[in-house]
Amino acid sequence: MSKQDQALKLHQEHQGKIKVESKFKIETKEDLSLAYTPGVAKPCQEIEQDHKKVYDYTAKGNLVAVVSDGTAVLGLGDIGPAASLPVMEGKAVLFKEFAGVDAFPICLNTTDPDEIVETVIRMAPTFGGVNLEDISAPRCIEIEEALKEELDIPVFHDDQHGTAIVVLAGLINGAKYVAKELTDLNVVINGAGAAGLAIANLLLEVGIENITLVDKFGALAPGVEEMNWAQAELATKTNPDQKTGELAKIMKGQDVFIGVSAPNLLNQKMVASMAADPIIFALANPTPEIDPNLAKQAGAKVVATGRSDYPNQVNNLLAFPGVFKGALAVQAKEITNQMKISASYAVADLISEEELASDYIIPAPFNEQVVNRVALEVAQEAMKSNLAKKEVEIDKLKKLFK
Amino acid sequence: MSKQDQALKLHQEHQGKIKVESKFKIETKEDLSLAYTPGVAKPCQEIEQDHKKVYDYTAKGNLVAVVSDGTAVLGLGDIGPAASLPVMEGKAVLFKEFAGVDAFPICLNTTDPDEIVETVIRMAPTFGGVNLEDISAPRCIEIEEALKEELDIPVFHDDQHGTAIVVLAGLINGAKYVAKELTDLNVVINGAGAAGLAIANLLLEVGIENITLVDKFGALAPGVEEMNWAQAELATKTNPDQKTGELAKIMKGQDVFIGVSAPNLLNQKMVASMAADPIIFALANPTPEIDPNLAKQAGAKVVATGRSDYPNQVNNLLAFPGVFKGALAVQAKEITNQMKISASYAVADLISEEELASDYIIPAPFNEQVVNRVALEVAQEAMKSNLAKKEVEIDKLKKLFK
Repeated sequence: MSKQDQALKLHQEHQGKIKVESKFKIETKEDLSLAYTPGVAKPCQEIEQDHKKVYDYTAKGNLVAVVSDGTAVLGLGDIGPAASLPVMEGKAVLFKEFAGVDAFPICLNTTDPDEIVETVIRMAPTFGGVNLEDISAPRCIEIEEALKEELDIPVFHDDQHGTAIVVLAGLINGAKYVAKELTDLNVVINGAGAAGLAIANLLLEVGIENITLVDKFGALAPGVEEMNWAQAELATKTNPDQKTGELAKIMKGQDVFIGVSAPNLLNQKMVASMAADPIIFALANPTPEIDPNLAKQAGAKVVATGRSDYPNQVNNLLAFPGVFKGALAVQAKEITNQMKISASYAVADLISEEELASDYIIPAPFNEQVVNRVALEVAQEAMKSNLAKKEVEIDKLKKLFK
Repeated sequence: MSKQDQALKLHQEHQGKIKVESKFKIETKEDLSLAYTPGVAKPCQEIEQDHKKVYDYTAKGNLVAVVSDGTAVLGLGDIGPAASLPVMEGKAVLFKEFAGVDAFPICLNTTDPDEIVETVIRMAPTFGGVNLEDISAPRCIEIEEALKEELDIPVFHDDQHGTAIVVLAGLINGAKYVAKELTDLNVVINGAGAAGLAIANLLLEVGIENITLVDKFGALAPGVEEMNWAQAELATKTNPDQKTGELAKIMKGQDVFIGVSAPNLLNQKMVASMAADPIIFALANPTPEIDPNLAKQAGAKVVATGRSDYPNQVNNLLAFPGVFKGALAVQAKEITNQMKISASYAVADLISEEELASDYIIPAPFNEQVVNRVALEVAQEAMKSNLAKKEVEIDKLKKLFK
């Protein structure tokens, strides 16, 4: 049976991938009177008097909505909400299996950003966090920003920030491996969509100043006409030399190439034109911007891809389960850049200096320590920055994340 | 420990009452590649090409949204969405425990009927059905009607129709027990809110013509000023003699009293003024419109209440789990009056003529046959009326509901 048929069979046999379970059985009148009427009235009243108690008496505190409008699903594009449901259920499965977080798919029958925002706000009382997923750029940015503004629970667009966290983790270790200062790196990001823009923002946050974004129309620079509003905004903060033109031109003398674009856009000549010991993140999936072997032949010192069958896989699984696990544990009001950076260092630090190698700058997604290390850093950072609605002692956190 | 504290402890220890579980484990790269990328692309594509297949490859087909705005929660009233969450989680637990149906609470941060309707429509792609819960009247009626109009999945406001189904079941058996024709009964319904209006509508559907609704301001009759739009509409279809005035006056000579109102509104004198062998449904909770013993002393032949510690409990658990189980099994597009009436007869028929007694006209909520009997009737009725998106052979249905 082909892999595709196997996947199809799996989905059909189980009728999807998630189910809702009761935390206890209702077998007697007594059970019923505690879980439902009249017993349920008491927690309701407690919450009515003090809204914070909703975290004590309901599942909200460990529950994430996986929200999509189905406009930018995997490599499939704009396939609509119903067709995106298997991906969102899959994401919910990953939340549960990797972080013990309850997650529930909400596929929205609208693509209007304002409507998405108001819908999520209206259903927020049920949830402790919101994971936005597979929403096309630049709409995803305004949707996330509006939700962060309005809600006091963490909102996180994984396609943006999950990727950015893991890329930064890889870059921290990559720089270490090639013995360059992280903040001195010259970085080209090819593909100025959701992921590319978020990566650029996070690298700026961490102090990397020399970043140039390139899209189909060439380098992002002030005045370039083809840019959308999000690209134009970022163009004012990146590309300090205001370079213009095509990727081949921009690549010359650069330390790092990060591709979140399309297959085979990078060639060996471009790699050879980079500075010494170049780092290549060719993350287009399933076919990278350049074949890792060709990149190495052309001089790349470190290569990462999005694929599980090559070394150094940039997989969001290294980020989002731990980020939410940590944020939920302390009821973080939001997920800040500093929390993301903490997550990146947590991922990077899982590889010791002795272990660091060209083929091992990013830990494997099934590394069992990742989730808890990330969660611990994110939770601590949330408390440090006074964004935690719940204070938890470090010792307790460490036990929780063991 | 008091019952209240016990309930509180139960809610706190478990951090709520529901959780989201994966239908299978992700332990290897292989698992990941089937449940998530790249395997998940195949079911997505299949659904994109044929939207009906969302029922084959996702959890949608067995998944009900329990939607509330928290405006009319149990005996607690308008406590808001967060405080209503324990009740909605409880409802989800009942769906799972009694019918094996996955249900998920959605508590909405808006009380505007139009906003509730548009929000539910937008998130409908995830769900196979919608159970509206604890939304105040008459808003609940316009919300349900608008959703039924717009959606092709079953929408059911349990406070209205669940109650109506069980009341009709009780009335079918009650009439049998006192040897009167069901359709000949003169019925007074006290309390013209969500439940009262729905009961009246269902009794009209089944052919009972002589129904009089009474609210705080007296009998509903054309021209009475205090009526809301929903009451005014029903006033044109009920009260054929256009009686006006207070409950005491209306009760004279009636066969049936159905109270969905408030404690102790019915006295022995009123019961004594009814026709021979009167039937009393005193459903106000926890304190009925009249104490069952007092009602019997005054001549009531049959008494039902909403309480589990008296005989003949009118409990929605007899209706909604089976109604949704049946409707979901055949992907019913809606839940019609005829389906509700079928459900009522399924519940009533669980008690044989030999078993029928003054204290046993309604089966117990833990009767294990109820759910499947109701489900079978509802599913069959849906297919008969061409409202089933999925045809299932009767033999298969019978196996499914065994």
